[in-house]
Formats: sequence, C-alpha cells, structure tokens
Amino acid sequence: MSGKGFFLFVTVLILGACGTDKHHNCQFDFTKGLEKVASGVWKAEIGNPDKVNLLSELDFNPKIDAINNIEEAELPVDKAEITAEVFDGKTYIRFPLDKEEKIYGLGLNFQSVQQRGRIARLHVDHYGGSDNGRTHAPVPFFVSSKGYGVLINAARYIDVYAGTSVRKDTKNPPVLYNRNTDRDWSAQPYSDNLEFLVSAEGVELVFFSGKSMLDVVRRFNLYNGGGVLPPKWGLGFWHRVPTLFSEEQVKEEVGEFKKRGFPLSVIGLEPGWMTRAYPCTYQWDPGRFPNPEAFVKDMAAQNIKVNLWVNPGVAPDCEIALEIEPYTGTHTEWNGMLPDYSMAQTKKIMGDHFSRNAIDKGVSGFKMDENDGYDFWVAPDVAKYPSGISGEQMRQIYGSLMQSFMAGLYRRKNERTYGLVRAGNAGTTSYPFVIYNDYYNHRDFITALINSSFIGVLWTPEVRASKTSEEWLRRMQAVCFSPLAMLNAWADGTKPWSFADVEEQVRQVMMLRMSLIPYLYTTFAHYAFDGIPPVRAMCLEPGCEADPKDQFMVGESLLVAPLFAGETSRKVILPKGKWYDFYTGDFVGDGVTVSVEPGLDKIPVFVKDGGIIPMYEPMTTLPEGPVPVSVRHYGVKASSFDLYDDDGRTYDYENGVYTWIRLVADPAVASGKATVLDDGTIWSFNDYEFKFMTK
Amino acid sequence: MSGKGFFLFVTVLILGACGTDKHHNCQFDFTKGLEKVASGVWKAEIGNPDKVNLLSELDFNPKIDAINNIEEAELPVDKAEITAEVFDGKTYIRFPLDKEEKIYGLGLNFQSVQQRGRIARLHVDHYGGSDNGRTHAPVPFFVSSKGYGVLINAARYIDVYAGTSVRKDTKNPPVLYNRNTDRDWSAQPYSDNLEFLVSAEGVELVFFSGKSMLDVVRRFNLYNGGGVLPPKWGLGFWHRVPTLFSEEQVKEEVGEFKKRGFPLSVIGLEPGWMTRAYPCTYQWDPGRFPNPEAFVKDMAAQNIKVNLWVNPGVAPDCEIALEIEPYTGTHTEWNGMLPDYSMAQTKKIMGDHFSRNAIDKGVSGFKMDENDGYDFWVAPDVAKYPSGISGEQMRQIYGSLMQSFMAGLYRRKNERTYGLVRAGNAGTTSYPFVIYNDYYNHRDFITALINSSFIGVLWTPEVRASKTSEEWLRRMQAVCFSPLAMLNAWADGTKPWSFADVEEQVRQVMMLRMSLIPYLYTTFAHYAFDGIPPVRAMCLEPGCEADPKDQFMVGESLLVAPLFAGETSRKVILPKGKWYDFYTGDFVGDGVTVSVEPGLDKIPVFVKDGGIIPMYEPMTTLPEGPVPVSVRHYGVKASSFDLYDDDGRTYDYENGVYTWIRLVADPAVASGKATVLDDGTIWSFNDYEFKFMTK
Repeated sequence: MSGKGFFLFVTVLILGACGTDKHHNCQFDFTKGLEKVASGVWKAEIGNPDKVNLLSELDFNPKIDAINNIEEAELPVDKAEITAEVFDGKTYIRFPLDKEEKIYGLGLNFQSVQQRGRIARLHVDHYGGSDNGRTHAPVPFFVSSKGYGVLINAARYIDVYAGTSVRKDTKNPPVLYNRNTDRDWSAQPYSDNLEFLVSAEGVELVFFSGKSMLDVVRRFNLYNGGGVLPPKWGLGFWHRVPTLFSEEQVKEEVGEFKKRGFPLSVIGLEPGWMTRAYPCTYQWDPGRFPNPEAFVKDMAAQNIKVNLWVNPGVAPDCEIALEIEPYTGTHTEWNGMLPDYSMAQTKKIMGDHFSRNAIDKGVSGFKMDENDGYDFWVAPDVAKYPSGISGEQMRQIYGSLMQSFMAGLYRRKNERTYGLVRAGNAGTTSYPFVIYNDYYNHRDFITALINSSFIGVLWTPEVRASKTSEEWLRRMQAVCFSPLAMLNAWADGTKPWSFADVEEQVRQVMMLRMSLIPYLYTTFAHYAFDGIPPVRAMCLEPGCEADPKDQFMVGESLLVAPLFAGETSRKVILPKGKWYDFYTGDFVGDGVTVSVEPGLDKIPVFVKDGGIIPMYEPMTTLPEGPVPVSVRHYGVKASSFDLYDDDGRTYDYENGVYTWIRLVADPAVASGKATVLDDGTIWSFNDYEFKFMTK
Repeated sequence: MSGKGFFLFVTVLILGACGTDKHHNCQFDFTKGLEKVASGVWKAEIGNPDKVNLLSELDFNPKIDAINNIEEAELPVDKAEITAEVFDGKTYIRFPLDKEEKIYGLGLNFQSVQQRGRIARLHVDHYGGSDNGRTHAPVPFFVSSKGYGVLINAARYIDVYAGTSVRKDTKNPPVLYNRNTDRDWSAQPYSDNLEFLVSAEGVELVFFSGKSMLDVVRRFNLYNGGGVLPPKWGLGFWHRVPTLFSEEQVKEEVGEFKKRGFPLSVIGLEPGWMTRAYPCTYQWDPGRFPNPEAFVKDMAAQNIKVNLWVNPGVAPDCEIALEIEPYTGTHTEWNGMLPDYSMAQTKKIMGDHFSRNAIDKGVSGFKMDENDGYDFWVAPDVAKYPSGISGEQMRQIYGSLMQSFMAGLYRRKNERTYGLVRAGNAGTTSYPFVIYNDYYNHRDFITALINSSFIGVLWTPEVRASKTSEEWLRRMQAVCFSPLAMLNAWADGTKPWSFADVEEQVRQVMMLRMSLIPYLYTTFAHYAFDGIPPVRAMCLEPGCEADPKDQFMVGESLLVAPLFAGETSRKVILPKGKWYDFYTGDFVGDGVTVSVEPGLDKIPVFVKDGGIIPMYEPMTTLPEGPVPVSVRHYGVKASSFDLYDDDGRTYDYENGVYTWIRLVADPAVASGKATVLDDGTIWSFNDYEFKFMTK
C-alpha cells in the first residue's frame, strides 16, 4: 500500500490518456489488449485497477506448468464483441452471448446451477435464501458452455447482468411484442449480453479457455494455486461437540464413538474452549480445559485430531489486545477488534498468539466463523483498515485473508491443516478450508456442492439436526460424499446415533466414508496437481450436457444422487457411457435418465464403466502408518487408475515426495495388477479385488 | 452537463488540496464548513460532489420565505462529532447518536417507522417485502427526534448504518459480554453512530433544524419546493378500469357508478388505451377508442376526469421513435427506448407527443408505471444516457425526472394535474404525483402512508381486490383517508359494489371522502404553503412521542386508526389533549391508549378538541363552480380554522389568487362565524353547523 504519490500521478495520466474526465469512455480493445500468461490464460488490464484485488494480498503461486500441460484452446469468442470501459468512476464490461450459450459459476449459489437470466451483486455475505450474489464465496468468475471463462479480479461488489440486459444497438434484438394483446409477451426479453459493473476505475480480467468447460475450470483452479490436498485425516469423519463441553465431556463423547463403533477423525470444539468468545481471547478456559496440551495429546493417541472454533473479533482482554490494536480496523464486531490480516505485523502478532495457544499444542486446525459478514458483522462498509484497505474491499477478502494467514501458520511447521471457513473468494483454491454456513436446506446444500465446482472453492453440506430419522439419514448419506464429512452438533448436541432407528445405517455410511479415503485422497491429488474439482457438476463431466441441481460427480468415477426427506424415488441423469450400481455392480444405464428407488438404507451411487475404486478396509479411526487397501473394479471395460499416496500430513509432496500406484484391471481375463510407478513394485490381483498397504 | 474540461480541472485541484490521492482522508470540518441558506437550513459541500444530484435536474423553487417564517432553531447536535471524508472513491459520513435518540425517514419504508437499528442501501426499486432501502422513494433524508434532519443529496445508492456500527474509538462503548456465559449477549451491541457511505468522491449535505420534528420536516418539504396542491377533483374518488376496456365499456362502467349512487371523480385507463404497450406508442388504439377527444369530453360533461397509464419505454412504432432515439439510453426496457428526461430535446419531443395525444385532448393526468425499476427494468446500471448521466444516477432519479417533465407539461397550460407514479426521491415534494405499487399488504400500506410524511412524498394504499368483504371494506375505509382514494381494478375488474354485503358501507365511506374535500384541500394548502405533510406520523403531532405503525393524522385535527381484516377491536394512542369520536362527537380520551370496537361499518376517526371540519354536502361528482359547505366543530374548546379556497384547477393561486375563510366556533355560546379574510364577508352560524359556498 505504498507509493501513493506515484499512484496519483498514474491516475491523472491515465485519465489524460483518455482525453477527458471520468465521464468519458475509456474503451478497451480486446482484439489487441490481451496479454498471454500461460496456455489458454490471458490478462487484460482495463483502466487503472485497484492495487488491492482478490489475489494481491494472498500467498500462493499459480501452477503455470500444470496449466501449460492442459490441451491448448483458443478463446471461442469474438474479441471485438467484448467491450470494457471506465465511466462514472466504474468499470463497465460486456461479453456477447450466443443463443444456446449457458453460463455457470458467479459465486456459491444455493438454488441455481445455470446462471444465464440472473441479476446479482456479488458480495460476501451469509447466504440469505436467494441467489442474488450475496453468498460466502461470491467468486466473480464465470464459465461459458462455449469453452471459456473470465475472472473479474476486483475486491469490489460486482453487479452482474447475466443475459438480462438488452442493448439498443444489439445485433440480436428480442421479438417486439404488444402486451395488450400478445400472450407471448415476456417480462424478460431475449438478451445477448453478459454485463458487469465494477465500482472501481479499472479492473484486471483474466481469461481462461479450454476444449471443455472442465478444462476452463482446471485452468482457473491452477491459476489460483491448484486445489488443496488435505491431510488424510481431514477426509475422515468429523464431529463437533456442544459449545460449553469440558475436556471430560469431550473425552466421554469420543469414548462413546469408540464404544458404539462409529468412526471419528476429528473432534471440533466450539467457542466454549476459550475464556471469552464474541469477542474472542483465543485462550483456553482453565475451568473447562485445565490441561489443553494433555487433552490434545490424549486425542492424538486415539488418532483423533482437535479443531477449534474462532471468529475474527479480538477481545479487549486477549493477551495481545494492546499489541494488535494498531493493526485493527476502525470498527468493532461484537466489541472485538478486527485485525487487518493483510499486514505483516498482524500476521506476526496473531500468528504467535494462535501458535502459542493452539497450533504448538497440537491443535490440527480451525473453524473460522463469521468472516463472511452479514452487514451487521465483520464491520460495516464505512470501516477502514490500517493498511489502507477500505471496508468494501475488506468485506470481499476478509475470509480469504484469514485462510491465507492460517494456512501459512501450518505451512511454516510443514504440517497440513484442514478446517472450515465461512467466507472465501477467488484465490483461495489452494487453501485447506471448506466453506459451511448457518443455512440448512438440504436440497440447496447439495446445489451449493455442485456450484462449488465451478469457482475453485470447497463446500460441506454439514449435518446439524433433523426433524426425522429419515432426514437425518439422508443428510448423513450426502455429507459422506462431500469434501468434509461432519456432524456439527455445537448447538443441538446431536450424536450420529441420535436417531436410534437408523443408527446402523448412519454408522454404515460413515464407515463407507472412511473406506473411501484412498479414492478421495487421489481425487484431491488431482485437484492439487491438475485443478480437477473433487466434487463436480454433471455438466463438467464429458458426455453430459444436463445441469441438474441434485446430483454430482465425486472423483473420476462416482456419480452421487442423494435423496431428500420425503422421497422414495428420484430421477438420475446418466451421462453417455455405461453406468453401474456402486453397491451391487449391476448395470444401470447408458446416457439415459433412470428412476431409482434405493430404499432408505442407501444413497444412490453409480460407477462409470471401468471405474476402479480403491478402498480402505473397514476402520473407525485412521491410524498413522500403512493401512490395507482393497480395490473394486466396475463394468466391462479394461481400465487403470493411478492411486496417489504420500505421508498424508506434510508439504513434502510439493517437493516430489509422493507415489503413484497404477491399478490396472481387465475384466476379460478377470485379473489385474498394481504397479508402484516410482519403484516398479508390482502386485497381481484377481476378481478385481486385492489388498496392499498405503504409506 | 457541459463544462467537462473545467470539471476535470476542479477534480484534480480538490484532490490536490487534500494533498494526496483518493485513499487519503479529506476530513470535512463541520464546525466551520456549514453554509446557511435559510433559517434553520445549512449546506455542506464535502469533497467534490457529482454535478448530477437528486435536485439538480428538477424544476422547482425552494420556498425560502416560508422556511424563514418557521420558528428559528439551532442545530441540536455537536458539530465536532459529525465527520465526513472522501476515501476510496467514496464519501464517508458520520453523525453522533444520543442514547434515547430516534431516527425517522430514510425512504418509503413499509414495515418500520423508527429507523435506528437498521442497515439499508437506499436504492430506487419496487418494494420487495423488507425495509432494506430498496423502495419507490428511498429518500436519503433522516429526521432525528433531537430536532434536526439531513438530506444526503446524491443520486447514488447510499449505504446507511443507522445505529448499528460501533467505532473502536467510540466515547460510548457497548457493554463487553462473553457469549459463552452471558445471557445478555446481543448480536447487535449498542451503537452511537449514524453512518452513511456514498459511492461518489463528494456529496452535498443539507441540514434542517426545528423546534419540533414537524418543523424539521416542514423545512425539508419547503426546501423541496413545498408540497403539491392537487386540483380539487384529485381529492375525489378514483377508479381504474380493466386494461382492455373500450370507450363504450368505460362509459357503461361510469354509468353504473351513477346508477348506484357511487361517487367518481377520475376514471383511469390502463395500457389498452394505446395501440401498443410494453413498449408504448402513447397513441390511442382506434379500435378501443375510435374518438378519444369526444370520449374525454363526454366524461368531462359528467365532471369526471380521464387519467392514462404510461410506462417509460418508447416503442419502435411510436410516431416519434426515430426522433427520440438519439435522446434515449443505451439499453432498452421490454424493447422500449428509455428517454433521457434530463434533456431539453427529450422534453420537447416527448412533451409534444404527450400533449398532442393526450393533454390537448383534455386528459387530466397520468399514472406513470415502472419507473421505479426492479433490476430487470428501467435499464441495468450498465446503461448510459446521452446527457452523460450514468445508470446508477438515472435509477435514482428516473421517476423524479418523469414527474418534473409531466408536471411541466400541465404547468405550461396553467392546468394542475394529479396522478400516480411508481418512483420518487428528494425534490419531488411539489410534484402532483402520488406513489403506488404492486405490493398489497394492507398493514404495510398504512405504515408506508405514515413514513411518506417524513420524506416529502405522497403514497396511496390503493385498493385492488380482496379475499373477503371485510378486507374489501377495511381497505376502502383506509384509502379514503389517504392522499389519493382509488380503486385500481386494472387486473381484477372489481367495482366498489363487488362485495354486495358491504356495498352500502363502501358507498358511505366513498361519500365521506367526497365530503371531506374542503378539509383535505386546506390540508394540502398547508402542505404547499407551509410544508406540513397532509398525512402525518403520530410522532410529528405535538404531545405524541409514540410512533405506531398503524395510525396517523390527516390534516390538522383528524386521527385515523384503520382496522385490518380479522380485527374487531384495536388500540389507539391518543396524544395529549382531548379527543372526540368523529361520528358521534363523544369524548374518547386524553393522552391515553384506548381500545376501540368500531364495528365493521366504520373506520375509527378521532377529532382533536376544538377541531373544525368543513365538509361538502353529499355528492357523487364534483361540479365546477360553487359547492355548499357545512361545518362541524368538535369538543369544548373555542377554536378557529382557516379554510383555503381557490379556483381548484389552475396555478393562479401561486400568484395570490386564493381565499382564506376563517371559521370561528365557540361552544360556550353555541355559535360561530365565518369570515372571508380577503373581503371581510362574515356569516354567523349556530350549533356548530352552517353552510356557505366554495368557489
């Protein structure tokens, strides 16, 4: 935030270059102005962009090499039809839309997948029940079905008119009606525009091309640092205890999991772990947690990690309150000071405090609440921050900054973390945090899961409470196929066995989640190395043009179609190619929509022809060291699957310390083999099942 | 919109004066920077305000002399505690709040009267069901219970934090809680701030003081040109016919009113009067209206005025389409071009078209629909207008511009008009348009009526349809005590007699409306000359500190407390002083809250002690020429009432062509007299009732 004198000079110069004042059009020429930064990635700098943008304050490296490995693709759009100009202190941007073109992305939406026809103001906020742009991750990135996408890289509230506005000079005018007498009159005439308005005197645009929408998304994810690779334990089952639980109560609850044979990887403590919350001290309450270090060790001895709730506001009686005060914003949140996490001093002071109180005591990570806002919180837009970041900018990146900060604390210890966060934006793809919220519509939770795959964020449809055992089981089934499988019982005190009549079914799907860790871990490795979202919208799957709101892909081969309370059957859209029932191996269909009636016990899961699914043997906690893996093969196609493995907990994999094991199966000869690619070790296997040990 | 080169120069100069770039604080000093413009009115120019603001494009004159006649009052706020600065391209404004201070105004809200505790973004829009700033008249003017108010004169979306934000450096910090254990913890800590954020590099503020909140509002209204004085016929009963009615059908419907003895002053035609609507030609459909001039004359002969629906979009087959095209915005609305009504050329072209097609044919006025927006309409914020006005600015003033334009067309003929509009803002107080909308919650309609009194606009809780005859009657009763008493049957085809079991009660309250015209006309004269809102919130009434959402004052003496469907009784807050039942004259209470059970037939109306209510004799249409008036006096106090009269239809009253008739009544001697103040004519009367003739 330095060099302000120079900044003023540049401002005037650029205005001057446009030949007049701020009301003049500074038209940008996209036929000439795109700067290539990697294969299928171009930048355009319109006007005089803000110094602070969605990526500028974050710590990650774009994975340019991996981007360059993706098949080359031109921008499938007439650049002369794209316009951008600075006017009235704002940046106006327009992309042309073809008749059949579909638009995806534009934030973590909960009720819609395809976005053409929508008007939104992208604005970090808790989700309020309608897809109007206010959401936990209003990532200003769209993916077009034509095979390109654009990031509007501005830490600003961004207005979007996605195929709603009609220009007077359009080449594709809507039909002219007379509402008096034409029944076809529509309140929303045809529009060939995708228009954006950014409240800044310039903006950086980043264009991504791809032979498929998936390739566009991959390039976007890799540009944002590539996906997170969680520690293996992060992919197990999570449970959060009621807010005022003491260490004895937590131990009892953990014991109950063991006694009942329910899996558990991570136990989450809520605000009551601290002496004060809302605002926070981030210091252990000596009454409820007299010996936190021993408590964390005790959990670790049972292969259970401890995760702690925090929110942004620093209490006046926090040990470092006086020290942090100069690096906090003008406004408080529930009496808490709001650290400016863009500043080195803040990271040092808060980092030392979190390390001393939690990380160095073995705490595995955090649930970072309420950095999404809601206008009453985080601080109003009239707030200012000591770095010079404005309230509006900070609102758009506060969650990103907290993610970057916390990830950094673990990274410097060479320990991976995995946790939860209420806000993200572009640039957070590589950070080990999964978004959650207070909303609780199960259908919408699944739609959010699908939408997360367009915009480089992760989402969990966490389970909290349910009205019926049916709803409980349906929610548990779905969350076990998400990036973070969690029962968040902070308010309700529910347990996985709270609904006795479905206790065994819940246990079974939780056990299945544990078993799927090898498959999921490889899935995340492809997120990290190749930018492929671990959970994907159906329209990112080859052979599928549909965009249902209630089914999704997990990893390479699994198609998950959850049921919701009250349903006994549902439609499932199967992309082209043969699909098989995950539980029975039976053929289900090929490029058709089928109706399934799975019964209450099962969540419908389908496997692509040739799908190879490596699975752990049943277990309730994830031990350190090697774990036996068994492998399933589905369908009739001879196929292979490269299973990723590493130490599961450090960043050494970034320096090449990992293994790929090639699993090959050929149903024609009913046998297969596994080859460790780096040392050439080979195992044979028959009947599409064999066992070996992971690291 | 000329002088752009100079404008740029000023911009740079002012930035220079602040010594740095846009991220620097340009703190404004309110202890020195207020410029007095009238008694109790001061301006402050923060930073470099936009050339276009809420008032700059409108045609009206502030009534400075009338403002100076209001009792002088200092600003009851510590000016050193008010702050304003330009930062990040926006203007930040802060006013201090006292512990008990209440805040009113801030737009046409429908669900709340007191605004402290609210966060809003003031933004012209259709009302969407919550008081979040998006409304038909989001006037950025607040009135404080301390006795001052401020207009933030910016044609911008304005963020408001009304007693919600807490500054770190506050002198009045909220109590520090621990949510873990303190039950008193609140999600909304105490705030001593009223903060605004305006997305412009400067803004004009206009401060208004007053010995009472009413005086603050009066100064605001007079600064905005003073209130409208409608033509007398505008205060009668209005009815709108179904959209595709032909002139024969309209005549039949009007005949039915006469046959059944229902009053009617204005008949409204909906889109079907035109050859094409959505977009509009504004030309009579020769099929449905073969002879519009004769039709209008026929109505006039029955003392019935004709009002026409229009909306902003000009159809490509409108006669003046080619001519107006250069003066329309970049984007269309339902295929219609949007005239830039800030431009002289637009006013000429559209004015000639409206005059030729409607006004010169005797049409009395318009219902101007859909200029409020809804983001899909009016045009997106990415639109631009040929005058240089941006989409955001135009959204905030489109309704105001249409009002100014239409009022001007009638003014140049020296004929008053009265009509309807969907959008207004500061500066429209003197324009002859009443706001209406598509929302239809009866309680909220009444709350809007109350809120209109703080912000210098008029609102009608129009009746459309009802589920039950009870609801029908309750809505009819309430609308008859509003600025525009209308049944808007465009979609439903309802008639006042549609619910047969309450037909007579509906007729009675419509007849009462007609009778009240002399009282209402004087009430509006006080709006025009003295800035007193004709319908007023209770907290603008001396002796009342309560701010109920469901009762209001009409004129000097009437307190109206409508019932809503499902209610048989209700509470009524009576300010200090004696109050009497309007229908019986019985004493009801003094400074107390009473419960009333009026029965279905009556809407509870109360009269202040000494209240003198001049009323027309029963009649169904308002004839030209003198009309007999009878007078009622209520209570025990000897009192007087100055009855306003003029020709009822021209602007000659602005040149002094009007009469005040002083009505004096003394119950101690059971007699009174009326004195025409300008010629001294005196009538005596007894038993508080006498008759005389208006002009």
